[in-house]
Amino acid sequence: MIRNDVLLYEGKAKKLFKTDDPKVLRVEYLDQATALNGGRKDIVEGKASLNNQITSLIFKQIKQNGIQNHFIRKISKHEQLVEMLEIIPLEVVIRNVSAGSFANRLAILEGKILDYPVLEFYYKDDHLDDPLINDDHVKIMNIATEQEITFIKHEAHRINKVLIELFSEVGIRLIDFKIEFGRRADGTIILADEITPDTCRLWDDKTKDHLDKDVYRRKLGDMIPVYQEVLIRLEKVFN
Amino acid sequence: MIRNDVLLYEGKAKKLFKTDDPKVLRVEYLDQATALNGGRKDIVEGKASLNNQITSLIFKQIKQNGIQNHFIRKISKHEQLVEMLEIIPLEVVIRNVSAGSFANRLAILEGKILDYPVLEFYYKDDHLDDPLINDDHVKIMNIATEQEITFIKHEAHRINKVLIELFSEVGIRLIDFKIEFGRRADGTIILADEITPDTCRLWDDKTKDHLDKDVYRRKLGDMIPVYQEVLIRLEKVFN
Repeated sequence: MIRNDVLLYEGKAKKLFKTDDPKVLRVEYLDQATALNGGRKDIVEGKASLNNQITSLIFKQIKQNGIQNHFIRKISKHEQLVEMLEIIPLEVVIRNVSAGSFANRLAILEGKILDYPVLEFYYKDDHLDDPLINDDHVKIMNIATEQEITFIKHEAHRINKVLIELFSEVGIRLIDFKIEFGRRADGTIILADEITPDTCRLWDDKTKDHLDKDVYRRKLGDMIPVYQEVLIRLEKVFN
Repeated sequence: MIRNDVLLYEGKAKKLFKTDDPKVLRVEYLDQATALNGGRKDIVEGKASLNNQITSLIFKQIKQNGIQNHFIRKISKHEQLVEMLEIIPLEVVIRNVSAGSFANRLAILEGKILDYPVLEFYYKDDHLDDPLINDDHVKIMNIATEQEITFIKHEAHRINKVLIELFSEVGIRLIDFKIEFGRRADGTIILADEITPDTCRLWDDKTKDHLDKDVYRRKLGDMIPVYQEVLIRLEKVFN
């Protein structure tokens, strides 16, 4: 890959750059944490490298479990190469245990184990504050077709099963997580974005300690030792 | 029916009383208007009688079009008898044209005709502000089973077709509406609650004037002449 610094997209925790291969992007993770849809924002040194390492390890690992995804390879501590996709503007959330906005929205006590995983779509639009939407909204806004919705739901539930297993092997319970999907030029849909403590709720199996971004959202302590703990546990088993 | 004044439920615009027949309730419409989930509240003289007459006419009319519902008969200007049901705590909304919270939530211009009707479920809970929920939420909260959800959606779309037709005959476009369903003792589900300018958005076909509660919500004028207009038009064709 010849370096290319054309910025394609800047998110809250990473930047996406073009490369000389039109099918490949470079992702640069940022030492930045945000909450309240960007309303709170802090520099957190070391976070970029931790998230890049965690998501790289997870995407590699779940690919071996049959989950196609955009990850190509890590190229530095805080950078990776990924497949160029047309990102579908949906945050696909799966919840195994009640927590966060779900707990508040429906008055279901945080920590309650749900009888089965609940899937939610949020429309990715900062100006609208990423509203919860239903399948009809997804279709009427031409975000995805009925067939694509069925595929995305099925794939998200498969990913949930693989992730639950992966985290349980390192003593972590997967409470909920957010993923995104993208379309290849041929129309096939695969997992994109990242899977990190920024995008998952992860509780220590025994202590129920938060091993995720909630330590930042809820001001429970430093993120770095917590994210490090997740990486160390994963590396012990999977590297 | 021997009169019985045991209050069963008090809503924002009506009260439900028991009767001596355990399968029958008396509904008393109130001269009251509210907005902002009860945050604004006014006495509106004449509204009870208008809504009772409008919903009675509509429920009778749609029954003739094959839509089962709880309506038995009007017993006074502002009262009616209905079948006793276990109300399902869902506000089922169908939208034919973008308006109101839908327009704001998704940034779809008010007045845009939707390519097909969009159905939404809101969880009826004043404390939670009637949040939008999806099918998974309905199931996980044991509000309705998968099979019941399928029936409710199908029935709501049927009702939409009948109502569009009914209103179009009196020069009114049905923008959107909210309905509720209830379960009989045998588990069958039928339409309940009311269909009035309180629960529908109705625009005059030609002038696009609001013939519904938006005149109150948006402080566009008096409700009574507007609700009267709807009743008069309906009575001319259907009585």
